[in-house]
Amino acid sequence: MTTILDGKKLSAKMTDELTQKVAMLDEKPHLAVILVGENPASELYVGLKKKTAEKIGIKSTVIKYPQNTDEKTVLDKINELNNDKNVHAILVQLPLPGQISEKKVIQAISPQKDADGITPENIGKISIGVEPYAYPCTPKGILSLLDEYNINIEGKHAVVIGRSNIVGKPLAQMLLNRNATVTICHSHTKNLTDIIKSADVLISAVGKNKLIKKEMIKSNSVIIDVGTSKVGNRVVGDVDFDNLFELVSYITPSPGGVGPMTIASLMENTYNLFKLSRNG
Amino acid sequence: MTTILDGKKLSAKMTDELTQKVAMLDEKPHLAVILVGENPASELYVGLKKKTAEKIGIKSTVIKYPQNTDEKTVLDKINELNNDKNVHAILVQLPLPGQISEKKVIQAISPQKDADGITPENIGKISIGVEPYAYPCTPKGILSLLDEYNINIEGKHAVVIGRSNIVGKPLAQMLLNRNATVTICHSHTKNLTDIIKSADVLISAVGKNKLIKKEMIKSNSVIIDVGTSKVGNRVVGDVDFDNLFELVSYITPSPGGVGPMTIASLMENTYNLFKLSRNG
Repeated sequence: MTTILDGKKLSAKMTDELTQKVAMLDEKPHLAVILVGENPASELYVGLKKKTAEKIGIKSTVIKYPQNTDEKTVLDKINELNNDKNVHAILVQLPLPGQISEKKVIQAISPQKDADGITPENIGKISIGVEPYAYPCTPKGILSLLDEYNINIEGKHAVVIGRSNIVGKPLAQMLLNRNATVTICHSHTKNLTDIIKSADVLISAVGKNKLIKKEMIKSNSVIIDVGTSKVGNRVVGDVDFDNLFELVSYITPSPGGVGPMTIASLMENTYNLFKLSRNG
Repeated sequence: MTTILDGKKLSAKMTDELTQKVAMLDEKPHLAVILVGENPASELYVGLKKKTAEKIGIKSTVIKYPQNTDEKTVLDKINELNNDKNVHAILVQLPLPGQISEKKVIQAISPQKDADGITPENIGKISIGVEPYAYPCTPKGILSLLDEYNINIEGKHAVVIGRSNIVGKPLAQMLLNRNATVTICHSHTKNLTDIIKSADVLISAVGKNKLIKKEMIKSNSVIIDVGTSKVGNRVVGDVDFDNLFELVSYITPSPGGVGPMTIASLMENTYNLFKLSRNG
């Protein structure tokens, strides 16, 4: 029997708990989000983040820049937010337009205000097995979902497809810290099909509709769908859900799986960074 | 035909080049090495590092502590060395006795003096694809060896066995940055044999004599032996070299493969960190 990993339900539970915790604070945690350009998916995500923050009682400020904004403007704004005591968490919505270096932007964020847990210091801490100020939101959300359904990945072969700085790379490290055997695949990978077939836990973060098909997967595996792409006006995942559903033991729907977990994790990170700023 | 990856030869070339560069400096780079306890392997390695440094013209100071030294003593010493303008690079020889936290020690080292490139900031930079102040010595030495023999790993399946903070974990990230598909295995890994069989490039960093046998490997693969263990008085690697030699395309001997490359990389790091201190 297949169990659906219901990210919508778990994220609602998480945001409810956060709402109660935030209500007890004498000041609202404040998340600043930088959004550059007119990427419709990014605008959608930022909108959802803002809405969820409001619901919880977290203050959020979205700083919007046009597509042609230069790198210095963004770096200066990050520096200003780093030094602003009324801002507790900073998120730069990725991807950025080509003229702005993602790597420079990531490095500019203060690790203590790193809402997405992707600065070198936080990532390096995760790598050596030390608690970071914040874990990257999407990987954190995925692990919370596995925990909720008591899925133990120790000794299992986890295959991550995609190696972004916000999903694939940190997720691989976090799965390794939980004693999974981890393979990370990407656009240069040869015989991807053979590797997918050996996965006990498959995480696809590519953004290609129906990349993961029924005949590719191992029976009774756990399937986590992180990818998003558009088919017409519909946002879809990487996994051919309907056709492989019956074969697997656990699977995330898309939408309603990893997406809401990412947002709930961001809210948790914002709350935790707020608490950190008070104790720091 | 099988080619031996001659780490002894390449490391000699690297140290010769460094000797010439160091001779042109008006001050000697200074490497401080902290050694705790009486681990014979650690004492051997530290001795080799000191000897190589002297040959190149790098000043090295070995700070020796007894086995029962407490954590604070080591952390205080690191802090002192971080602030000492006459010290350009700091190495803490691992492993440490049980009462001293390896993670705390790694985090205490200044990233700008991190001779083994293992602090969170340097590891995190490697993860996001940014140049660190220093790369971890053993992974760096392995990549230099691959480069010397023009071995292109793009799209190849690289399997790393062992997930230490100084070898396995950073090596996995560095192989990924070179577009290999990377699998990282460890003590919890099930069906290790199947995974090894799929490796185009196999790196074993376990410390178990003859762990890697002829029947386990893929024909024409590249075999890198990082492990060390003792058989009687002899230091041996993980790979059953004599029996599988003819099957593979490239292989490191042990000793004479990765070991000397690690030391040469440490010397390069020390030189580079010295230069950094001058430009910083």
